[in-house]
Amino acid sequence: MLPTPLPAAASTESPSAVIGKVKALAFDVFGTVVDWRGSVIRDGEALSRRTGVEADWGAFADAWRGEYRPSMKPIIEGQRPWMNLDVLHWENLLATVKRLKIEGLGEQDLRWLNLAWHRLDPWPDAAEGLARLKRQYVIVTLSNGNIALTVDLVRHGRLPFDAVLGAEVARQYKPHPQAYLTTVSLLGLEPAQVMMVAAHNGDLRAASRAGLRTAFVIRPTMNGPAQKDDLAPEGEWDVVARDFIDLAGRLGA
Amino acid sequence: MLPTPLPAAASTESPSAVIGKVKALAFDVFGTVVDWRGSVIRDGEALSRRTGVEADWGAFADAWRGEYRPSMKPIIEGQRPWMNLDVLHWENLLATVKRLKIEGLGEQDLRWLNLAWHRLDPWPDAAEGLARLKRQYVIVTLSNGNIALTVDLVRHGRLPFDAVLGAEVARQYKPHPQAYLTTVSLLGLEPAQVMMVAAHNGDLRAASRAGLRTAFVIRPTMNGPAQKDDLAPEGEWDVVARDFIDLAGRLGA
Repeated sequence: MLPTPLPAAASTESPSAVIGKVKALAFDVFGTVVDWRGSVIRDGEALSRRTGVEADWGAFADAWRGEYRPSMKPIIEGQRPWMNLDVLHWENLLATVKRLKIEGLGEQDLRWLNLAWHRLDPWPDAAEGLARLKRQYVIVTLSNGNIALTVDLVRHGRLPFDAVLGAEVARQYKPHPQAYLTTVSLLGLEPAQVMMVAAHNGDLRAASRAGLRTAFVIRPTMNGPAQKDDLAPEGEWDVVARDFIDLAGRLGA
Repeated sequence: MLPTPLPAAASTESPSAVIGKVKALAFDVFGTVVDWRGSVIRDGEALSRRTGVEADWGAFADAWRGEYRPSMKPIIEGQRPWMNLDVLHWENLLATVKRLKIEGLGEQDLRWLNLAWHRLDPWPDAAEGLARLKRQYVIVTLSNGNIALTVDLVRHGRLPFDAVLGAEVARQYKPHPQAYLTTVSLLGLEPAQVMMVAAHNGDLRAASRAGLRTAFVIRPTMNGPAQKDDLAPEGEWDVVARDFIDLAGRLGA
């Protein structure tokens, strides 16, 4: 019997060969590791109880986060010098409370609310999944959050990352390739040795264009109960997982 | 009875007021957290067993480390562009094996030996002391070692640092003030809110000039059994401790 001709796809690497080269996992944080929306709402509700100032904190969280990408755009496009995310969050917070007509909060209240991003709670599977993945891979953050923000958040959630890297050490925001490639370079690795883990298809598209491997983790409520985006993979990602424990199993950790 | 006049020193802050402002501890690594000399000797001896190439690995470790400061000097003084410590270690390794006439090691052996700095063993009190200190303070590395080196070393010793910062993110080596101040800035803190922890008086002198607080930990054999330097504090350091467990006690952690 003649051997079956190899299909065209066999000229590319097999999935196990791709994964076998990966030495480090670089994690997106907001939405992927932590529930930013639920945590911002929780802190808003605490502020209402403390001050008596009422607001629709779900709408507020969505509006505040809605300013996130527009505020990074002039920096990514080189029209504004580097500003870290604590600064952008602060500018966006002032704009959002004004637009939503949330009145009666003093500067101290607003400063406290801006630090909600330092206190975001991890998804229930995050710490356990990371601990398993850490046994086999270097695990780092590759977030647009600044170092101080991410250190606070990682301590808050007792998340066992090996290092906090990402946008601020690159002085450039995702999805600019420099944000990914600086983290790769600081780890002393090649892009194909680093797998980006994200719940955002757009993040993985940019990581993939920069040469990184990709893992999509589905977080179906990260943008709230009516979430429509990122409910399924939109690219040929190397791995697709339900959560970090499932990801650990798929990566043999 | 008349009240005793306050001594002049009372016009400065009390030790407890100084320590009460500290939010983060920044650790020197080589000598302070890990036994670089014993670990380099151990790896040299393993190389002898594997290759049959004999050497006085104690003399080798001292000679290799002897090239450390001279190799950083042109970078600190702006005569050479930034090169990370893996690169400087490699250049220094080639110079050292040549000068000591250690012959018969192939490139692969030398590449493995260069990574000895990624495998340095912690002092016996380091992991336990850090775990205690972490409950109360942000704990980060502020080493001249590059990120990839320090991540490997921290994983090797299971050391619970919150973040790996230091020279490479500043693209400048200690004792240049920029190496200290970049780490302080990335933590979102003021210099007086960060305490440098080191077994080297020179490191603390430079940290203190940059405005950081200082803790001296005595490591009486970090440079070998005949160590003469750094056996006692040579400045008015804020804290002096025998090891990291003693340091935790003195910092109320």
